[in-house]
Amino acid sequence: MNYLSSDFDALKNEEKVLRQHFEEIKAKGLNLNMARGKPSPEQLDLSMGMLDVINSSSDCHTALGTDCRNYGNVAGIDECKRLFGDVFEVDPQSVFVGGNASLTLMFDTISCFMTKAVYEDTLPWYEVKNRKFLCPVPGYDRHFGITGYYDFEMIPIPMLETGPDMDMVEKLVAEDDSIKGIWCVPKYSNPTGITYSDETVRRFAALKPAAKDFRIMWDNAYCIHDVTDTPDTLLNIVEECKKTGNEDLPILFCSTSKITFSGSGVAALSASETNMKFLLDRYNFQTISYDKINMLRHAKFFEDYNGLLEHMKKHQAILAPKFETVINALETQLKDTNIANWTNPNGGYFISVNVLNGTAKRVVELCKEAGVILTGAGATYPYGNDPDDSNIRIAPSFPTVGELESAMDVFCVCAKIAALEKLLNK
Amino acid sequence: MNYLSSDFDALKNEEKVLRQHFEEIKAKGLNLNMARGKPSPEQLDLSMGMLDVINSSSDCHTALGTDCRNYGNVAGIDECKRLFGDVFEVDPQSVFVGGNASLTLMFDTISCFMTKAVYEDTLPWYEVKNRKFLCPVPGYDRHFGITGYYDFEMIPIPMLETGPDMDMVEKLVAEDDSIKGIWCVPKYSNPTGITYSDETVRRFAALKPAAKDFRIMWDNAYCIHDVTDTPDTLLNIVEECKKTGNEDLPILFCSTSKITFSGSGVAALSASETNMKFLLDRYNFQTISYDKINMLRHAKFFEDYNGLLEHMKKHQAILAPKFETVINALETQLKDTNIANWTNPNGGYFISVNVLNGTAKRVVELCKEAGVILTGAGATYPYGNDPDDSNIRIAPSFPTVGELESAMDVFCVCAKIAALEKLLNK
Repeated sequence: MNYLSSDFDALKNEEKVLRQHFEEIKAKGLNLNMARGKPSPEQLDLSMGMLDVINSSSDCHTALGTDCRNYGNVAGIDECKRLFGDVFEVDPQSVFVGGNASLTLMFDTISCFMTKAVYEDTLPWYEVKNRKFLCPVPGYDRHFGITGYYDFEMIPIPMLETGPDMDMVEKLVAEDDSIKGIWCVPKYSNPTGITYSDETVRRFAALKPAAKDFRIMWDNAYCIHDVTDTPDTLLNIVEECKKTGNEDLPILFCSTSKITFSGSGVAALSASETNMKFLLDRYNFQTISYDKINMLRHAKFFEDYNGLLEHMKKHQAILAPKFETVINALETQLKDTNIANWTNPNGGYFISVNVLNGTAKRVVELCKEAGVILTGAGATYPYGNDPDDSNIRIAPSFPTVGELESAMDVFCVCAKIAALEKLLNK
Repeated sequence: MNYLSSDFDALKNEEKVLRQHFEEIKAKGLNLNMARGKPSPEQLDLSMGMLDVINSSSDCHTALGTDCRNYGNVAGIDECKRLFGDVFEVDPQSVFVGGNASLTLMFDTISCFMTKAVYEDTLPWYEVKNRKFLCPVPGYDRHFGITGYYDFEMIPIPMLETGPDMDMVEKLVAEDDSIKGIWCVPKYSNPTGITYSDETVRRFAALKPAAKDFRIMWDNAYCIHDVTDTPDTLLNIVEECKKTGNEDLPILFCSTSKITFSGSGVAALSASETNMKFLLDRYNFQTISYDKINMLRHAKFFEDYNGLLEHMKKHQAILAPKFETVINALETQLKDTNIANWTNPNGGYFISVNVLNGTAKRVVELCKEAGVILTGAGATYPYGNDPDDSNIRIAPSFPTVGELESAMDVFCVCAKIAALEKLLNK
């Protein structure tokens, strides 16, 4: 039933049926969560073997002879630099291996630029009173959290099917030197799941920002996180930047949070010589070294990049049916209504749904009433402000397929009810 | 032979004998290191069992049901909060458990105050252009590194046998509101090994700083790190601050870096409600959670505070003979000469030696020539500037007792030669 072309009585009748269904669902007392991109226990179980590769009889030395139990090696052990070098497709010498969270590496990077100048003729961002950051929307709430904490004015950039609207990005950064950076999840973007096109990557590499210290925060969180057998590919931004002489533009981030353990993975960044020196000037005071035993544990468990890719196949086997469940529910229950559209990504952790404008908050509220927790409406926009009140991020990884089926029934019913409430009150 | 009361010819003769001895030592081609407070492999071996308490068949949930493998619990797991609560002698609810390094928690604390104001009527320290920090000397170079990085003017405060010179501290903080804090290692201080007297702690708790946002960085790094059976005791600053209404004054830090693994321990801080809220406002953006599996690993390995103290006895058994070796060498080889004095601490990681004024750099240089690496002279002072060029920090933990004996022979010969060079050139 196409809600947008149906008459009042038909809609009224549909609403009555749905309200009854909603009451039946509520009576079930569901308690399901599709709010955060958390791996399921089954996925975490895939890495339990990693907890055995270092034990009381292990030699905890690296190939180069570093005792991982002791202090030292601020930039991480070579074994992990090589592994992340392969993930990033960069020279391992440009890699810094940190603690358990790439979010922390990103926060610390912004924090570093806040109080120190990367070039002699630039200012610490703290001193740029009208500092701004570009935020592709819908995007990742925790990115916006960092630049929000540091009082940046956050400028939303629409996400197109090819990535951020590059016409807008190019124009803005060229004319305003208080714009200091942009948040990017270039592959299987959070939450739309789209991957930046080759042209988008090339245009990023060719940017001519007015701010010499403009930085692309290239959060490649889902770089090897395919959920289908037709994975996306992403152009190597480091190589492109070499061609344009813009080596200092991007800083790359990733982690094993969604590969091994979300709480106990290893994070890494890759940066140009200038950026790395700038960041190391800080890290040399911030720490003596990050957890090298956990680095060694990861390096031994995977052995090499191929081992990592083999491991990702196991995640794919668990995640693929969950993504299919969500897409199937949307297709069968919402497609005809014409009140919503959604992405169908080849990887990552999310499906992005746009419900009828002005109803996202209401959908989330109704779902909660029926025992299904979603990411807060607006969370995918800076300041939590989705001007269309339309975007909802669905995170299908944590629930079981059975739970997802129930949760998606709830979601679709709620999306319909919210739409009908709006259409009937026009 | 008392160098200070001997005549020129006697000193000249002594120098000749020592130079010959020095050449013999050099010929041995030693390669020893007493530079950093690094635990020895034997000490690290004490915690190898910890690598077995969590393995592939472990239940990784906390008592409260948190899956340590997944995201969440930004302030750490309850099991570790309790353990560190006992170490700090504070309410576990005032504890934040972080990553592997208390240095990082300290850096991040200063970093937090740099760009945000803790009270409505104070300023982010970045905006205090002549910001200053008090630095007890000799002290810990990595502390000075943090406030140096953030461009504080660092004011040296002499260390007395009771702790920092409190007359000076009280006077300075009362009259200058650009003084924002002081670095303290209150127990087995780095490098002198002295423990603050009860009166010193009470005077800290009773400080009336002109700066409302003055903070005491209470780095209790060696809180349970005794090396003798007559350990020092430290008054509980949190309790004292409750009495004076100065709860926001201290922020406490510690870690298991010198309890389990220096590279893979767990660090914690304890702070007042106001400070904790201020810091959590940042941590909630900086991370989703620190490594909870490593927290659980520690909690399970020690079980409770008594388990921790039992473990420290094993460290003591390894460290005590090393401290004795250093003290014996100093007593037998340097005491008569009257050119040096030193501390004889009941715990911690260091022995602080004052050689003849104006010779510390030369002693370090001579030692290096003979194959013994010491902490750089001056490192224990802000800006590496020891005005007397006298203090040298000896770190006896890493070498074996045999190596220490050789290294201390070198040290004593070099201290004597440097003194003679100075005395003979008067």
